Amino acid sequence: MYYHVNGDIVPADEATVSVRDRGFMYGDAAFETLRAYGGTVFEWEAHAERLEATCDVLALDHGISDEDFLERIRDTLDANDLRDAYVKLSVSRGPQPGKLSPGPTENPTVVVMVSELPRGGSEGTPVWDAPATAEVVKTQRVPDAALPAHAKTHNYLNGILARLELDADTDEAVMLDSTGAVTEGATSNLFFVRDGVLYTPSLSSPVLPGITRDVVRSLADDAGIPSETGRYDPAAVRRADEAFLTNTTWELRSLASLDGVEIGGGPVTDELAAAFDALVEARHYDPDA
Amino acid sequence: MYYHVNGDIVPADEATVSVRDRGFMYGDAAFETLRAYGGTVFEWEAHAERLEATCDVLALDHGISDEDFLERIRDTLDANDLRDAYVKLSVSRGPQPGKLSPGPTENPTVVVMVSELPRGGSEGTPVWDAPATAEVVKTQRVPDAALPAHAKTHNYLNGILARLELDADTDEAVMLDSTGAVTEGATSNLFFVRDGVLYTPSLSSPVLPGITRDVVRSLADDAGIPSETGRYDPAAVRRADEAFLTNTTWELRSLASLDGVEIGGGPVTDELAAAFDALVEARHYDPDA
Repeated sequence: MYYHVNGDIVPADEATVSVRDRGFMYGDAAFETLRAYGGTVFEWEAHAERLEATCDVLALDHGISDEDFLERIRDTLDANDLRDAYVKLSVSRGPQPGKLSPGPTENPTVVVMVSELPRGGSEGTPVWDAPATAEVVKTQRVPDAALPAHAKTHNYLNGILARLELDADTDEAVMLDSTGAVTEGATSNLFFVRDGVLYTPSLSSPVLPGITRDVVRSLADDAGIPSETGRYDPAAVRRADEAFLTNTTWELRSLASLDGVEIGGGPVTDELAAAFDALVEARHYDPDA
Repeated sequence: MYYHVNGDIVPADEATVSVRDRGFMYGDAAFETLRAYGGTVFEWEAHAERLEATCDVLALDHGISDEDFLERIRDTLDANDLRDAYVKLSVSRGPQPGKLSPGPTENPTVVVMVSELPRGGSEGTPVWDAPATAEVVKTQRVPDAALPAHAKTHNYLNGILARLELDADTDEAVMLDSTGAVTEGATSNLFFVRDGVLYTPSLSSPVLPGITRDVVRSLADDAGIPSETGRYDPAAVRRADEAFLTNTTWELRSLASLDGVEIGGGPVTDELAAAFDALVEARHYDPDA
């Protein structure tokens, strides 16, 4: 496997950053997790926009254009002869002298990591092996006032501590905010369905504006499925008719249970998952598109 | 300059970690900032204990003994022929496959970085060039429920966002908790004096248990200076008779002003700073000690 580090394609096991890189020293870096389907990046514009929003929060003025980022991703996919892949794009302020206050970003670090990830799609096998089990954990989501959740950064210990609370059979940790409302999973957004209405926690709580979350909400609109965002207790999720998690890797993954209470997917989850597959296939695989 | 990376002394500009190191990917690493005076590490036992507490929070089971860590620090100081130095010791879970949930730590990453840092001491010049100016910032300290403040980790964006709020003439950002109480600076603990009593925010709020903070409280006890920990509003600091900041690098640094309100040092700050210098000199430089 080859990665892309600061303009060079390098073997993955030789891909390194300085120990003085602010990404290593402080987790002071922005990232996006992307999916390539059929050789092209899904929802690139949305990811590029979110990366820019993260860099705005961090005042990380890297001076690199979206086109340049995309070209590095393409070059990395090509170097590995990959068409269906997981992609992680990271940008840090680079190595700087030993002060916490950042200096101007003169040498940003840009890393593209990829791995093969076959598409599930309407005919294939999903990347996950079964519906997810999840538990509400004690670790609370970092509030926006401390570090805005819409910034997707390398400060990921909050989610790691959440995951560390789980036993090995549980897939995802659902975090609450300080008021006890559901926010999101460590690496996923959460949806649930009750009486035909699709619900997901609103971005007024500390929730990452997931790209898949946006796509699913838009597909629900297209399908005439009523949807609502708001503040929800875990009990509302546990008594739902259906629930599922979303992220770039999982796409839609139905939620088998929360806190041991069985929920599972259902007709709305299935309809949205099928619509997601159809969207991906029309955009990335249809020879006439 | 030479650093120490995973058992090897390497030139600083060749000191690297894998882009898959969890320290880079997620800021999933523990660290200590230390000071060597006269060739030996100040308060090593306290630092080693705090590092262990951090690794407990992270469930980072590195399998490396305190003696091993200390030997790596000594080797790094020796390689650079340094006796008075700043030292940063970091430990991560190392490179792991691309899952957020950590696997067992089979190849921890251990990095020792050093730089020359002459001691101020009773005869010398402090490392800071003037008393500190500080401002209370909007960025709130991450609550313990999200990421315990007693864990000293590479997730440092909270303090970076706090510092980014400051103009170039202000040295330190003081963060409040969600109730509006003073917690600490981005890289320092805060003390203030009123009517001869020494105050500092208690560890029941999200405050790093600073080693210098502990030493200063113990020196105050020895000197018969009454001290108290608790919950304090910024206004209590602004109307103090004296105030100062502490960390391993600054030792005691008087606080010239908070939010533009002049405070400054005074007799208690001076007495404690002199006692700190005397302690360091007795332990590290006294030929008869």
